[in-house]
Amino acid sequence: MWEAIMKMPEPDQEVLAKRDYLVRRLKEIVRNPEGVIDRETDLRAFECDGLSAYRQLPMIAVLPETKEEVAEILKFCAREKVNVVPRGAGTGLSGGALPLADGVLLGLGKFNRILEVDYENRCAVCQPGVTNLAITDAVKADGFYYAPDPSSQIACTIGGNIAENSGGVHCLKYGLTTNNVLGVEMVTMEGEIVRLGGKHLDAEGYDLLGILTGSEGLLGVITEVTVRLLRSPEHISAQLIGFPTSEQAGDCVGRIIAEGIIPAGMEMMDRPAIHAAEEFCHAGYPLDVEALLIVELDGPEVEITYLNDRIGEIAKACGATVIRQSRTEEERMTFWAGRKAAFPAVGRISPDYMCMDGTIPRSQLPHVLARMNELSEHYGLRVANVFHAGDGNLHPLILFDANVPGELERCEQFGADILKLCVEVGGVLTGEHGVGIEKRDLMGEMFSEEDLKQQQRLKCAFDPEGRLNPGKVFPVLHRCAELGRMHVHHGQLPFPDIPRF
Amino acid sequence: MWEAIMKMPEPDQEVLAKRDYLVRRLKEIVRNPEGVIDRETDLRAFECDGLSAYRQLPMIAVLPETKEEVAEILKFCAREKVNVVPRGAGTGLSGGALPLADGVLLGLGKFNRILEVDYENRCAVCQPGVTNLAITDAVKADGFYYAPDPSSQIACTIGGNIAENSGGVHCLKYGLTTNNVLGVEMVTMEGEIVRLGGKHLDAEGYDLLGILTGSEGLLGVITEVTVRLLRSPEHISAQLIGFPTSEQAGDCVGRIIAEGIIPAGMEMMDRPAIHAAEEFCHAGYPLDVEALLIVELDGPEVEITYLNDRIGEIAKACGATVIRQSRTEEERMTFWAGRKAAFPAVGRISPDYMCMDGTIPRSQLPHVLARMNELSEHYGLRVANVFHAGDGNLHPLILFDANVPGELERCEQFGADILKLCVEVGGVLTGEHGVGIEKRDLMGEMFSEEDLKQQQRLKCAFDPEGRLNPGKVFPVLHRCAELGRMHVHHGQLPFPDIPRF
Repeated sequence: MWEAIMKMPEPDQEVLAKRDYLVRRLKEIVRNPEGVIDRETDLRAFECDGLSAYRQLPMIAVLPETKEEVAEILKFCAREKVNVVPRGAGTGLSGGALPLADGVLLGLGKFNRILEVDYENRCAVCQPGVTNLAITDAVKADGFYYAPDPSSQIACTIGGNIAENSGGVHCLKYGLTTNNVLGVEMVTMEGEIVRLGGKHLDAEGYDLLGILTGSEGLLGVITEVTVRLLRSPEHISAQLIGFPTSEQAGDCVGRIIAEGIIPAGMEMMDRPAIHAAEEFCHAGYPLDVEALLIVELDGPEVEITYLNDRIGEIAKACGATVIRQSRTEEERMTFWAGRKAAFPAVGRISPDYMCMDGTIPRSQLPHVLARMNELSEHYGLRVANVFHAGDGNLHPLILFDANVPGELERCEQFGADILKLCVEVGGVLTGEHGVGIEKRDLMGEMFSEEDLKQQQRLKCAFDPEGRLNPGKVFPVLHRCAELGRMHVHHGQLPFPDIPRF
Repeated sequence: MWEAIMKMPEPDQEVLAKRDYLVRRLKEIVRNPEGVIDRETDLRAFECDGLSAYRQLPMIAVLPETKEEVAEILKFCAREKVNVVPRGAGTGLSGGALPLADGVLLGLGKFNRILEVDYENRCAVCQPGVTNLAITDAVKADGFYYAPDPSSQIACTIGGNIAENSGGVHCLKYGLTTNNVLGVEMVTMEGEIVRLGGKHLDAEGYDLLGILTGSEGLLGVITEVTVRLLRSPEHISAQLIGFPTSEQAGDCVGRIIAEGIIPAGMEMMDRPAIHAAEEFCHAGYPLDVEALLIVELDGPEVEITYLNDRIGEIAKACGATVIRQSRTEEERMTFWAGRKAAFPAVGRISPDYMCMDGTIPRSQLPHVLARMNELSEHYGLRVANVFHAGDGNLHPLILFDANVPGELERCEQFGADILKLCVEVGGVLTGEHGVGIEKRDLMGEMFSEEDLKQQQRLKCAFDPEGRLNPGKVFPVLHRCAELGRMHVHHGQLPFPDIPRF
């Protein structure tokens, strides 16, 4: 059993003794000793996140129940020089919550209460383990909701959303997580409890709350969150718009935005995705188009009626061959059912697929889609596109068969080429899935050595020993003392070796 | 002359020689040697910013023209251990651009070109010395604009807006500067040129662009800016709504927001401000009310008509006695003329006034307005309120006469009490004016020693020697090496002594 955990044929007696010591001490710290997990079968639950190609058992998992316990655990691990990986629901797609063989996995699953709903200030105060959808569920009867809506919203937690700066279909109009979080309570690796932001607008000093959002668990452990609540829109309506070419659809997206219309969501699917989704859940999508837009509007009914007409005119001018407006709430949900099922639907037409996440300036959409087709031919692998067109946030799904020798490697190469293409046209390596381990080694495509060091200097300001989630995000982790500007030393920390399955 | 600059009776020969050396070398760095200013009469232009109670001549002012010159200047100053204060137009209200007697003032006035307007990606690329209004002027004929609109927008620069995270009347709907900046090119104190963000949505890694926004010139010198452009609204309309009490007006603000309506702007003025403004510019304000709201809506005409009616109903339910809707663009401008002239108008009814800037959770508006009246009586000083009610961002103007002995001190005490009250009710010390030197010594009311150290660790990640704009924002500046967590040493850098006029 121990072999499996440490990936070493001969477990070192000294290491075993240290592990037993850590387990014993952690059981003294957490109120409920069942919150310390060290049996292999129990640890299996934490061995991967949504990027399931990578698996690793943690040395120990611990599930605290209070911020004081979190602080004690971190202080203890800092003293014992043990690395820590924080984890929400483990739905992340870039391996950010992947455990370390010699580290403690800190699960926030027991932080699952909504502490306060404050309609006057339009916010809710939650523990980090509350799921994204639970927040909306708690306030929707009163006519409110929490805007960011990642596909995994039934399962993913608000703490994890902050760590990854999660997006969703509606972030075109309502912003990413960073635009919807007002405050956070976090614990640093040294066990200090710090409050950032609150129920007010902006705050003086550096925007530490902004830095924490999207920091992928490398700066601190979140123990409380204050999120902005929005009033549920009075009316919502969606349009399906089909085009003979992807270029026309891309052009239509740009023209709608240029017209000053900000839809609640504007999604695009290409032919392979449309067909897969339609076969899977019969959303009534047209099958004779190359590209489909779903454009959703929300607001007062008079506004929607007016803007729907204008969008229809723009779409016609761009060459749309199908324009269909939802007449009932049921029909609107059907339009979305296909989009929301697109990933599993693609999973049915191919033994395996890999979901990429990159962002480009909107104007590059036609060019990038054309280049992606060329790459698809070059690698001999099909690609289905389902993405947040309004944001320029691409999600190409590369179809492959892991049982065919060499296909996984070709697929990975194809994916890397797509991301490099994103950077080349002025975009970035990720949109909403984070860097984690998946894109760690591509960071150099985007950032210079000096850029990466600047990011790490900031990391050192929070976690000087580099104990929080090491091995993620940065391709090379420098010791803080080595980051001085005058005499840069290209040293490298012993880097956790992440086994691949 | 030299005495006046250094505030020392006997200028040290060594200091003089060093200054001459610096001037000579800086003239070699900047292309145009007239860009190095060392004559007292010429330096006067830089002696203060909008917080004119504090004045200080810089040792030398330098006006570079290219990013390479900026990099060379900073590298040179770092080597020579000379502090640097960056400056835009000097319209800031918290003394952030106040020069240092022994420092170089780095003016960005020559960086005044708009480099690119890109409608497809809805952004403009500008040099930092371009004024806020010039951006809108450059694109308005094509139907676009830049949203944040500080009162000083004719004069203030986009670089300064980023340094202070400036707001304005319309940030309720469109966000502060931080929500409207997409990318920045900056130079660190060591002369490295770094690019943050760009024409795309979000970026991986820590949100360095977010940290830079609002950093008050302490992290780097901005040399290029990419801002978001918005489509000019199709239609704009404003309503004047008068109430018998401030509490009713505050209640109305909360109810409009709770209803799900986000006006483009929602401003409030109290009786003293209404009367001063009306006398000054005859905006047609009602004089028999205690509080006046200006509520502006923008968007398609059908939406505005519909929402205007709903706002009218809410206002009536809250006890409004006057509801007047702008029927023409001219009338709308008249409504705003009074609000925009409110500060100079108050200047006419009092020999001096001090403008405060604090932010509170919106629900605390009635309570804070009532407490402010009590404080006004306690200090025997009148206060006029003109503020961004929708954001909870207060701008109390305290009226005083600097020629009456003790009144300035009483006024400052009153101001500090207002800001402490903001913090007490869950708000913060500033909304959009920054900390600078004005609120530096109040930071301890808001942040613990540990909080401030965490901010400074971040400062050290950018500027380890503390050469950029020292003396601003932080009440005590720690040496970076002293910020270690384990053995905290309460050391203090020799702090620049800022003379008071």
